[in-house]
Amino acid sequence: MSRSPIKVGILGATGTVGQRFIELLATHPYFEIHALGASARSAGKEYAQVTKWKLSTPVPESVRKMVVQECVPEPFKECGVVFSGLDHDVAGEIEDAFRTAELVVFSNAKNYRRDPLVPLMVPLVNPDHIEVVKYQQQQLKLSKGYIVCNANCSTTAIVVPLKALEVAFGPLKTVMVTTMQAISGAGYPGVSSLDILDNVVPYIGGEEEKIEWETSKILGGVLPGATGFDLHAANPLTVSANCNRVPVIDGHLACVSVQFAAETKPSIDEVRAAFSGFVTEAQTLKCPSAPGQAVVLHDAPDRPQPRLDRDLYAGACVSVGRVRDCNIFDVKFVCLLDNVRLGAATSSVINAEIAVEKGYIV
Amino acid sequence: MSRSPIKVGILGATGTVGQRFIELLATHPYFEIHALGASARSAGKEYAQVTKWKLSTPVPESVRKMVVQECVPEPFKECGVVFSGLDHDVAGEIEDAFRTAELVVFSNAKNYRRDPLVPLMVPLVNPDHIEVVKYQQQQLKLSKGYIVCNANCSTTAIVVPLKALEVAFGPLKTVMVTTMQAISGAGYPGVSSLDILDNVVPYIGGEEEKIEWETSKILGGVLPGATGFDLHAANPLTVSANCNRVPVIDGHLACVSVQFAAETKPSIDEVRAAFSGFVTEAQTLKCPSAPGQAVVLHDAPDRPQPRLDRDLYAGACVSVGRVRDCNIFDVKFVCLLDNVRLGAATSSVINAEIAVEKGYIV
Amino acid sequence: MSRSPIKVGILGATGTVGQRFIELLATHPYFEIHALGASARSAGKEYAQVTKWKLSTPVPESVRKMVVQECVPEPFKECGVVFSGLDHDVAGEIEDAFRTAELVVFSNAKNYRRDPLVPLMVPLVNPDHIEVVKYQQQQLKLSKGYIVCNANCSTTAIVVPLKALEVAFGPLKTVMVTTMQAISGAGYPGVSSLDILDNVVPYIGGEEEKIEWETSKILGGVLPGATGFDLHAANPLTVSANCNRVPVIDGHLACVSVQFAAETKPSIDEVRAAFSGFVTEAQTLKCPSAPGQAVVLHDAPDRPQPRLDRDLYAGACVSVGRVRDCNIFDVKFVCLLDNVRLGAATSSVINAEIAVEKGYIV
Amino acid sequence: MSRSPIKVGILGATGTVGQRFIELLATHPYFEIHALGASARSAGKEYAQVTKWKLSTPVPESVRKMVVQECVPEPFKECGVVFSGLDHDVAGEIEDAFRTAELVVFSNAKNYRRDPLVPLMVPLVNPDHIEVVKYQQQQLKLSKGYIVCNANCSTTAIVVPLKALEVAFGPLKTVMVTTMQAISGAGYPGVSSLDILDNVVPYIGGEEEKIEWETSKILGGVLPGATGFDLHAANPLTVSANCNRVPVIDGHLACVSVQFAAETKPSIDEVRAAFSGFVTEAQTLKCPSAPGQAVVLHDAPDRPQPRLDRDLYAGACVSVGRVRDCNIFDVKFVCLLDNVRLGAATSSVINAEIAVEKGYIV
Repeated sequence: MSRSPIKVGILGATGTVGQRFIELLATHPYFEIHALGASARSAGKEYAQVTKWKLSTPVPESVRKMVVQECVPEPFKECGVVFSGLDHDVAGEIEDAFRTAELVVFSNAKNYRRDPLVPLMVPLVNPDHIEVVKYQQQQLKLSKGYIVCNANCSTTAIVVPLKALEVAFGPLKTVMVTTMQAISGAGYPGVSSLDILDNVVPYIGGEEEKIEWETSKILGGVLPGATGFDLHAANPLTVSANCNRVPVIDGHLACVSVQFAAETKPSIDEVRAAFSGFVTEAQTLKCPSAPGQAVVLHDAPDRPQPRLDRDLYAGACVSVGRVRDCNIFDVKFVCLLDNVRLGAATSSVINAEIAVEKGYIV
Repeated sequence: MSRSPIKVGILGATGTVGQRFIELLATHPYFEIHALGASARSAGKEYAQVTKWKLSTPVPESVRKMVVQECVPEPFKECGVVFSGLDHDVAGEIEDAFRTAELVVFSNAKNYRRDPLVPLMVPLVNPDHIEVVKYQQQQLKLSKGYIVCNANCSTTAIVVPLKALEVAFGPLKTVMVTTMQAISGAGYPGVSSLDILDNVVPYIGGEEEKIEWETSKILGGVLPGATGFDLHAANPLTVSANCNRVPVIDGHLACVSVQFAAETKPSIDEVRAAFSGFVTEAQTLKCPSAPGQAVVLHDAPDRPQPRLDRDLYAGACVSVGRVRDCNIFDVKFVCLLDNVRLGAATSSVINAEIAVEKGYIV
Repeated sequence: MSRSPIKVGILGATGTVGQRFIELLATHPYFEIHALGASARSAGKEYAQVTKWKLSTPVPESVRKMVVQECVPEPFKECGVVFSGLDHDVAGEIEDAFRTAELVVFSNAKNYRRDPLVPLMVPLVNPDHIEVVKYQQQQLKLSKGYIVCNANCSTTAIVVPLKALEVAFGPLKTVMVTTMQAISGAGYPGVSSLDILDNVVPYIGGEEEKIEWETSKILGGVLPGATGFDLHAANPLTVSANCNRVPVIDGHLACVSVQFAAETKPSIDEVRAAFSGFVTEAQTLKCPSAPGQAVVLHDAPDRPQPRLDRDLYAGACVSVGRVRDCNIFDVKFVCLLDNVRLGAATSSVINAEIAVEKGYIV
Repeated sequence: MSRSPIKVGILGATGTVGQRFIELLATHPYFEIHALGASARSAGKEYAQVTKWKLSTPVPESVRKMVVQECVPEPFKECGVVFSGLDHDVAGEIEDAFRTAELVVFSNAKNYRRDPLVPLMVPLVNPDHIEVVKYQQQQLKLSKGYIVCNANCSTTAIVVPLKALEVAFGPLKTVMVTTMQAISGAGYPGVSSLDILDNVVPYIGGEEEKIEWETSKILGGVLPGATGFDLHAANPLTVSANCNRVPVIDGHLACVSVQFAAETKPSIDEVRAAFSGFVTEAQTLKCPSAPGQAVVLHDAPDRPQPRLDRDLYAGACVSVGRVRDCNIFDVKFVCLLDNVRLGAATSSVINAEIAVEKGYIV
């Protein structure tokens, strides 16, 4: 591809997810950072002065002196895409205002994930959902603007390997999942150190419900005529989730047990082959941020581990290991996702790359 | 009880579990530390000189200058009980030699847990298994010596609440469990800090098998005539376990989903009542180390937590929280055990207290 | 002592320090918790409902259902002592109002520490400073009310061993100190886990200045006639401090190098003897919360350590170890303080016990 | 430079430092990995099979199937340089044998650091020491072989900024340093997690002595005729060190106070300029692994921090911050070094690059 770069904006640019957007987009082959949006308190000042940068790479030079804008459409009007890392308490109104102003929004916020007009897109799982944005525009009488959401980080961790299984062996019946989630998933300042040092917190508000619900929308298909999402297509899938916060900086780990809907069960070797052979449309479209492998299969009995494996393919893949028989269901395994990359900003970016490749961003 | 104190010995006295035995027994109302056994390297020296004491309470004064013995029966011959905190690589031979020398051994090692003559006793679950020691003596032609084992720490964490459910609602059909286990479970030096800081290791060698197997022996009954253990009594129980090591010092946490065998399912309120109302024989026998409550039920949505709750009742109870419906099975909950106390030394000590109360130690 | 219990109040009762006050005072031989003060938001509700209790011991039964008051003098008027664990942003006004209402305030807040009328009292160091409260009352035309402050936690960690050296060898000339401070020193939620996991933060705002300044007031004497504090009495002492936050829950560790003012230098053995032989007035007065030893001297080369040694004497002592020659100054050593106990609430409580014994609380 | 690649060997290739050598050399512009040496147990097997790889980047493809050799000279005879990451208990004999076999050894081990014939070279500090290798060869009657050591990691952390000060303001008189060192400095398995979670260990065996002694050799000059090292050249420098282990994975932090020998003291601004303007010969020689800046000066009051700053310039620089007046000496500051890179393997590699540029490797 050798088109001229598409100008992009970043909302919530000083926050945890916003910083990741900046890191990913500062040297992106398709996109060029054009505008940064943050709270009124930061607006009018240089980015480097108002951000508490928390990444181990320095603030990109191209962004240091960029003047931060308020989160209103006007300064973003030249943007071909606006990425939103806003907190959910403000994301709802702002993203809607941007869409109404005919801007394209790829959002990491949860506000529109359950909206029947909005694709809930995990780039390695359901890129076909993008086509519902035309119906979204039609219903809202818009010509260019739309919203696409990516999924919650812990949902993303499991739907990628579940999709690999579904592609190979058909629908799933039952999924039991227990997560061990990193502190960065709660943002900054997020989790108090007094709550998590030498500790595990066996509860993350709303998280289990998100996993149980989002999985159905993502693994479900698109309704005929692309007029919405078929939540029943993923039936008879039942998901039960247990979510825990652990003292890990980045990387959500999950223990998953799966029962297939079909009578005939694949062998462990067949399941392993399904994981390592899983190829996604983001890869065949040659999206620049797509990982070399969607699912990296580990052979060592004690892998994947967050600290050692979260950086594989720049955090854009899901690692899977310990594939083995389950006494109760058909197969169990462990999976790992970099929650701040494929679990957040990287998902939005690959989603936008898919949209570019498919002609939804111009 | 106002009998004169029973002399006890501690094998593996310088190790992690041995230190806990010393802490528990230094001021015990029934027992008096009489002999300490360790490796030949330490034998002949004062305890304080050869131990790398790792507890936050100081070495008890009464033990500091006690001369350490080799792990042979002779110096322990006056002991009414010998507690074993030996590593499994030496426990098998040494414990057998002690039993053959007509000594009573309460062991934390795994070597004899699957032995059909040896009770695998969790003091808050199956104290009735003690009566099989008579058959053990008879088969081995011994008059006084026998071995009793306590369970693996992660097994103990779940069988206590499972027993409470079984007592209230009858047999269980299915148990899915994912553990998050403390580093102290691996002993000292045990887990390298490079392996666990900012990390989770989703594998503990042999641990899942122990949970899956031990649960059946513990929840199973005693054969007619107390000639062994009825592994089938716990049927149709199927257990599937996922074990993880997390950067927590003490306290194993587990997420558990349970399906009852009976058609009629209890309500969540009934399950909660079963937990909080669970009373064990260790309590009714007034064993001095038994907890005030066997299962402590937590109401806060984010409890139990290892750091905040592991010290309840001096680590002799199991905490349960988040009792709620499971989308797949009947009920799910979180439980917490202090792995170095009820999960190890405290179990052996309460087991011995039960044996005293029932007349098996004289 | 067998007087009837003195009613006490606790301000900031739901905070980190307030919770420690409750833990210490719930079973105190002199004091009885009579009133709990917190923000208007909590006032009128039961304590257990409004506190996010973060200690590993449960909320004392006697306090659970106590109704929380606003921090105004009226509901505390029967209190013989009011302990303040208030944040500094509100402590100034509230503590002054309590004093004006003729109440006795022992405060952990920093607001009045530099006040020339207010004793800055470390109970194991300068209990004689209490007598200045009479001058405080006289100047403010009060008959009963006064304020006494305890020192900043990191200051407390070093002044106790420095006092032991001064008592034995006369004035000090130079003290270089580098601290490694626990996260609990910053309160709750305090330090974000993203800032401190796998990290050290080499900066704590205002902390170095506090150590450098407070040390002079504490080690200085009382002016003739007890009309204030002789900051010059500690001359020629110069202190240079470096403060760091480390991922430790409780326990501030410090590396200290000291130069004595006198020409003749003590030997390392003499310094060790000065530490282990240090006896304080809090001990001779038999204050119930005073530690068995003011300074616990460790022989092992790698002690004291926060996790293993912070609980000695219920956190009311200072641990000292690694006493050795310094290439630059005369002697260097490592010291450890439990910042949430002797570094905060325990100091206030022992200060109040001293005041009782000396007749300043009636 | 467009010479053909120099074949290199790596001793101790499966260890912590050896893995870093492999990571650095797998894509190096001058060097090509030719032979890997490890213990007899690993010899004869493929590298990927015998290493417990602990880096977050995968084992380089070019090395995975390389067959590991025993640490004897024969299989390394074609190597222009042999890098040694051996443990000190075997490094002495093996490195000597390699040198005797006319091989050039750049070693991270401590064995020859105090040898009067062996340069103790920190690449950003004393590259001129390399010329003593000619005298080393002459004394040992060798034509090609020699040994060069790099310094201990914590020494390296401080000598780089100290050299910057010395270059700008002349000799130093006094250096007081307190380190907070990462667990990776102790190798693998190294520090037990039970010793360091929620803890600081205020002792690292031999470390304080290394800092105090090595600093003099490194900052000292070369004797006339390059016949050794002038330990007195660094006089009147006195160093006093306090070393602590903290729960940080990578990155040694140090608090340093410095007194200059000269009467006239630089201002803080002049000191800051000396740090940020420090240029080293490794940079002017354009060594490929030299950092863009030798000392990165931080302005934020709470930087440098290990987790956020250790990756700057791929861990090849030293970060300095908090430059300010010291109440006792002239200036104090905080510095940070990536102990596993510039503190170990990267130092050896830049040292070898310097040797190439200066014609000592052919």
